[in-house]
Amino acid sequence: MSFHDALTHHIQSHNSLLCVGLDPDPARIPAHLGSGATAVYAFCRDIIAATQDVVAAFKPNIAFFEAMGPAGIEALAQLMTLPRHNLWILDAKRGDIGNTASAYASAAFDQFNADAITVNPYLGGDALAPFLERPERGAFILCRTSNPGSRDIQELPLADGRPLYMAVATMAQHDWNTQRNAGLVVGATQPAALAEVRQLCPDLPLLLPGIGAQGGDLAQALHAGLDAHRAGLLINTSRSVLYASAGTDFAQASRAEALRTQAAINAIRFA
Amino acid sequence: MSFHDALTHHIQSHNSLLCVGLDPDPARIPAHLGSGATAVYAFCRDIIAATQDVVAAFKPNIAFFEAMGPAGIEALAQLMTLPRHNLWILDAKRGDIGNTASAYASAAFDQFNADAITVNPYLGGDALAPFLERPERGAFILCRTSNPGSRDIQELPLADGRPLYMAVATMAQHDWNTQRNAGLVVGATQPAALAEVRQLCPDLPLLLPGIGAQGGDLAQALHAGLDAHRAGLLINTSRSVLYASAGTDFAQASRAEALRTQAAINAIRFA
Repeated sequence: MSFHDALTHHIQSHNSLLCVGLDPDPARIPAHLGSGATAVYAFCRDIIAATQDVVAAFKPNIAFFEAMGPAGIEALAQLMTLPRHNLWILDAKRGDIGNTASAYASAAFDQFNADAITVNPYLGGDALAPFLERPERGAFILCRTSNPGSRDIQELPLADGRPLYMAVATMAQHDWNTQRNAGLVVGATQPAALAEVRQLCPDLPLLLPGIGAQGGDLAQALHAGLDAHRAGLLINTSRSVLYASAGTDFAQASRAEALRTQAAINAIRFA
Repeated sequence: MSFHDALTHHIQSHNSLLCVGLDPDPARIPAHLGSGATAVYAFCRDIIAATQDVVAAFKPNIAFFEAMGPAGIEALAQLMTLPRHNLWILDAKRGDIGNTASAYASAAFDQFNADAITVNPYLGGDALAPFLERPERGAFILCRTSNPGSRDIQELPLADGRPLYMAVATMAQHDWNTQRNAGLVVGATQPAALAEVRQLCPDLPLLLPGIGAQGGDLAQALHAGLDAHRAGLLINTSRSVLYASAGTDFAQASRAEALRTQAAINAIRFA
């Protein structure tokens, strides 16, 4: 099954476009879980158990595990061995050339058994190839990110009049998605850019960070980003679900917040 | 001491522009060292000991350690605790936004105690800031890479006529190097691009991959890339030094190859 088909399956079977980003900040883990990598593992494990029937995907952010050193990477590796009921996207923003890109792809797909990874297009198509050579594993390519500095490079006007990120979207659509396993990352904070990308790339799944803490408007993002089947989109949320409560009820609170967001998305999606 | 000053110090004290990239491929580790992360650690440790008086910098490539899982990250962490006689550049090509970029910077500088890291500019200046906020720690920003696919994005012509990589070089020179700790990665395989970047950025250190296995010409690269002090440059080599011998003499062979390359560089540099 291609990665695109697997994504469609998980969106349908969970009736959800929601993706929960696992960006565990040690300072915000509920105190009763203790501290260190063991606490981070327990925290993520319980969030996953409480929300896995409500979301299409989980997106662990490797930076937060790497920042804890080898014990953090071990905690991530353990999380990646939990029984799977969702897509797992390793948020790693990797990008390098030749045998280094192959090593990163092996880390993501063999060591961590991720279904997909986020990647950076700056090094070009040959650097992306190792992440796209397995049809059942996907790569979400950074296109237009949700931060203010995204204008520095991504919005630079090209000689043909387009902003750079539209050239990235064009290559993803025409050159890089040969096995139905490429997607794009487009920030929910720029609905106009999102609409342009969706028009150019009708069949590519889009991963949207920027709802919630970063201020993106859910209805605008959905109207701009949904595909012809009212799907093809993952709406990421991290902090609002992860830190819904700092108490012993954190997992139930994360479930309630995930259910609330799922319902809000579907109310717009099926209106 | 700023990162730029530390780099100048190491170039002078070792009389060397050489940087040895630690990209350990488990399939090419000498058989007598065994296998797995323990063998990789011993291999790198012995290469370092044999070459540390000949090189200005070591550049461990985290992808090759990550591909071995948690044990690989532990091996890298152990290498990073060895007594330091050189600059250590973590080759990670990181790039992400906000608190994720801060987590990657903390991993590089706090967990691994790297002196510098390689970073990707696609997400813009605010995404680079966490890597540049400590004056004594440096960031080498990808500008023009050595792979064929670098043309896909980096050479796209902008509306003002420049290729994209020159816009990156301009921002590095004028906006991002406020604390004398930014550098650029420019592939040795494109001496014309390298000369343009050097002209625009007279004071930025340049890290040059692409000599050796990738085919870059040493003399052309040096003529294009040296600064006004015949320095400001790190010439990276990985495979030719690491795999100079597959036998029990691998460390001595790596030393001989490093000495040969150091001499070849200095012969051109001081001609």
